[in-house]
Amino acid sequence: MTLQEIAKSINIKCDSTKKISGLSTLVDSTQTEITFLENKKYLSDLKNTKAAAVLINEKFANEVPSGTIALICDEAYLNLAKLSKIFAAEVIETEGEEPIIGSLTKLMPNVYIGKNSIIGSNCTIMAGAYIGDNVKIGNNTIIYPNVVVYRDCNIGNDCIIHAGTVIGSDGFGFANTKDGKYIKIYQNGNVEIDNDVEIGANCTIDRAVFKSTQIASGVRIDNLVHIGHNCKLGIGCILTGQVGLSGSTVLNQYVIMGGQSATAGHLEIAPFTTIAARGGVTKDITEAKKSWAGFPLIEHRRWLKLQSKIAKLLK
Amino acid sequence: MTLQEIAKSINIKCDSTKKISGLSTLVDSTQTEITFLENKKYLSDLKNTKAAAVLINEKFANEVPSGTIALICDEAYLNLAKLSKIFAAEVIETEGEEPIIGSLTKLMPNVYIGKNSIIGSNCTIMAGAYIGDNVKIGNNTIIYPNVVVYRDCNIGNDCIIHAGTVIGSDGFGFANTKDGKYIKIYQNGNVEIDNDVEIGANCTIDRAVFKSTQIASGVRIDNLVHIGHNCKLGIGCILTGQVGLSGSTVLNQYVIMGGQSATAGHLEIAPFTTIAARGGVTKDITEAKKSWAGFPLIEHRRWLKLQSKIAKLLK
Amino acid sequence: MTLQEIAKSINIKCDSTKKISGLSTLVDSTQTEITFLENKKYLSDLKNTKAAAVLINEKFANEVPSGTIALICDEAYLNLAKLSKIFAAEVIETEGEEPIIGSLTKLMPNVYIGKNSIIGSNCTIMAGAYIGDNVKIGNNTIIYPNVVVYRDCNIGNDCIIHAGTVIGSDGFGFANTKDGKYIKIYQNGNVEIDNDVEIGANCTIDRAVFKSTQIASGVRIDNLVHIGHNCKLGIGCILTGQVGLSGSTVLNQYVIMGGQSATAGHLEIAPFTTIAARGGVTKDITEAKKSWAGFPLIEHRRWLKLQSKIAKLLK
Repeated sequence: MTLQEIAKSINIKCDSTKKISGLSTLVDSTQTEITFLENKKYLSDLKNTKAAAVLINEKFANEVPSGTIALICDEAYLNLAKLSKIFAAEVIETEGEEPIIGSLTKLMPNVYIGKNSIIGSNCTIMAGAYIGDNVKIGNNTIIYPNVVVYRDCNIGNDCIIHAGTVIGSDGFGFANTKDGKYIKIYQNGNVEIDNDVEIGANCTIDRAVFKSTQIASGVRIDNLVHIGHNCKLGIGCILTGQVGLSGSTVLNQYVIMGGQSATAGHLEIAPFTTIAARGGVTKDITEAKKSWAGFPLIEHRRWLKLQSKIAKLLK
Repeated sequence: MTLQEIAKSINIKCDSTKKISGLSTLVDSTQTEITFLENKKYLSDLKNTKAAAVLINEKFANEVPSGTIALICDEAYLNLAKLSKIFAAEVIETEGEEPIIGSLTKLMPNVYIGKNSIIGSNCTIMAGAYIGDNVKIGNNTIIYPNVVVYRDCNIGNDCIIHAGTVIGSDGFGFANTKDGKYIKIYQNGNVEIDNDVEIGANCTIDRAVFKSTQIASGVRIDNLVHIGHNCKLGIGCILTGQVGLSGSTVLNQYVIMGGQSATAGHLEIAPFTTIAARGGVTKDITEAKKSWAGFPLIEHRRWLKLQSKIAKLLK
Repeated sequence: MTLQEIAKSINIKCDSTKKISGLSTLVDSTQTEITFLENKKYLSDLKNTKAAAVLINEKFANEVPSGTIALICDEAYLNLAKLSKIFAAEVIETEGEEPIIGSLTKLMPNVYIGKNSIIGSNCTIMAGAYIGDNVKIGNNTIIYPNVVVYRDCNIGNDCIIHAGTVIGSDGFGFANTKDGKYIKIYQNGNVEIDNDVEIGANCTIDRAVFKSTQIASGVRIDNLVHIGHNCKLGIGCILTGQVGLSGSTVLNQYVIMGGQSATAGHLEIAPFTTIAARGGVTKDITEAKKSWAGFPLIEHRRWLKLQSKIAKLLK
């Protein structure tokens, strides 16, 4: 579609016949993508964007760099949501190549594998598993029964995904209209899982809104863990039972999170950090190799001291 | 069955040959239903009940209104549990009409759809989904792989239910016997989901014990959320990851609940309330448009202040 | 395999041609099993072990009892992990007897039942359920759609397992190498569920690393509950929504755990204990019939008092 056609769909005038391939952030957009600016704290990213066009409020129009077309509108994020549907993939592909299954790979009964998907060799795909369209799975990987891998996701070699886990479900994203409706932001990214990752049962790992939710090699995830869209887990991270990561959380390498601990969104945790059970992380952790606990989060040794002070209130 | 036969099954004498259709609460019972009074705080509801009969302790017998027959027993709730089995539907219907599938609706392989169920037009029911008996689904709704919808539940138009989510599982209900057994209270209600609702992956939404667990239009639910039996969610409510609602929680319109927040049962939250992540609600919230946090729950701004006071204990 | 062959696989010299059947703990090992000592707090168990051999650091070598062969190594736990793969069962059995299905048992479409499995009479196994190899299920048990029961697990009579629940997934266990790799400890135990147990939707109950994760009769489990490997739940325990039990938690009879409460691993809770919602148990509870709350956990009545003291900090 051309930029003109796309803009017209949200009642914005634009003459450009440039072909547009999709949507992305200010930082990641290529010259065929549309981006948006909603929050002025991202104005510095605007200056360096390579996007073909940007949905933006009139008051920021003169900040738009020369190579990018300003699509002036009152509600940039809402318009992004509306456009996201245009670029959403089909829920199921009806055309495409039959999947390719590597040698020695066992497919049990009642497995579904979508169009254009490629499964490596020596894998076991157990009964009831659903592997969507355009999925790639490496070698020696075990997919336990009733696992669901949504379209476009990739899983590496030597991985184990336990029963009932869902990989690539839509991230939780929508824009509000003035009359109280929520407009879905179609999640057009995917999930990329590297080699040697084990994920427990009944976990949920959401696909990215743009680009990829990433799980690096060596990661170990226990049961009933929730990973929001666009999270990035570095190598060797360990997430124990019922951990919840909000969207766009970045865990650097070897971060360990105790049971039921959680993060707020859009934050980064330094390498070799340990979060105790129930810890609630609401800010970046910039110093590596420390242990934290509590909600609000403080250093673990201080949390222990604080609890003994609190206990004294009873005396 | 007649009231006489039913009463006899729990060793209560009763001569009435009135036909009984089911069980319900004091408030909701119709003239063909049996109800119960266990807790004297519901005595005011007893006065206005329309029930055919009430399971009740002898000491409250003279409070029973004239149109209602008193079924005198020591353990009203336990007897309700015993009777609930009589009215429980079959787990699977063996008779009934073949399901009706609307035009343009896609059914993927390995989908099961039960007797008497009706799926609207332009839906997508993905592989491994289970749609029980007597289920109604509207138009344009997407049911992702391995979703389970128990019998008798209804889902509206334009809904999206992500993979692995369970709708209509039994609420958590049982009565205790004196010798330490738990007698199941069969959950004979259902779940009613209105139009334009999106529910994340691996959620669980329990059916009502009587009547319906209700999700109004516009509701957005993230992953791994638990909704107990008989909850009612008003339009536009937002529940983020790993939220838990105990049975009979009422959320009025546009309540927002942060990650891992939860409610105790049988309480009501005013419209436009925001509960911060991890907030634990144990009482009704009657004033609209306020923000709350913590456990015990207090106003969010006071919680922030309290945390800074607590932090000072370390100095 | 002989002890010599097994030891050789991890570069330990040993002349014994004793046949070895598996791995186990110091306490539980039989005369054909290999055990390990990593932590010196278990030295007293070493003295009484009946194991054929023990993986052990040189410094404890002279503590090994005379009937047991010391397999001297630097990293006992890591070597245990390496050996666990040798004794791991196949993910899917390709040989064995066809399953035996009792009379009046209903199998819905798309059910998979593995080799050598035995299902009792009058059961209902609903669509999409996966019952692995060597599983035994008693009479009158209902397995709802898309439940997964991993190989070797047992479920008793009169049980109800709700949709999407996973029984027998691998416990969360691995050993660290010096260069930051995690070596999986294959979970060669199983799950044993006794009679009259009801388990909610989308729960996860991990198999034991050795021996069995045990759920005694009468237990009631709500939705989205996580039970780690080697837990033991006594009769009549009640676990409400989103509870999490870390590995090797022992709940004695009639322990009640409120919503989102949790336990750290390797601890025991006395009979008739009540843990309030969100309670976090980190130590043994030795006195029966008490109520606890909070994290850190204190007696419930003291927790209530403490909260009122904390609230006063705001004044």
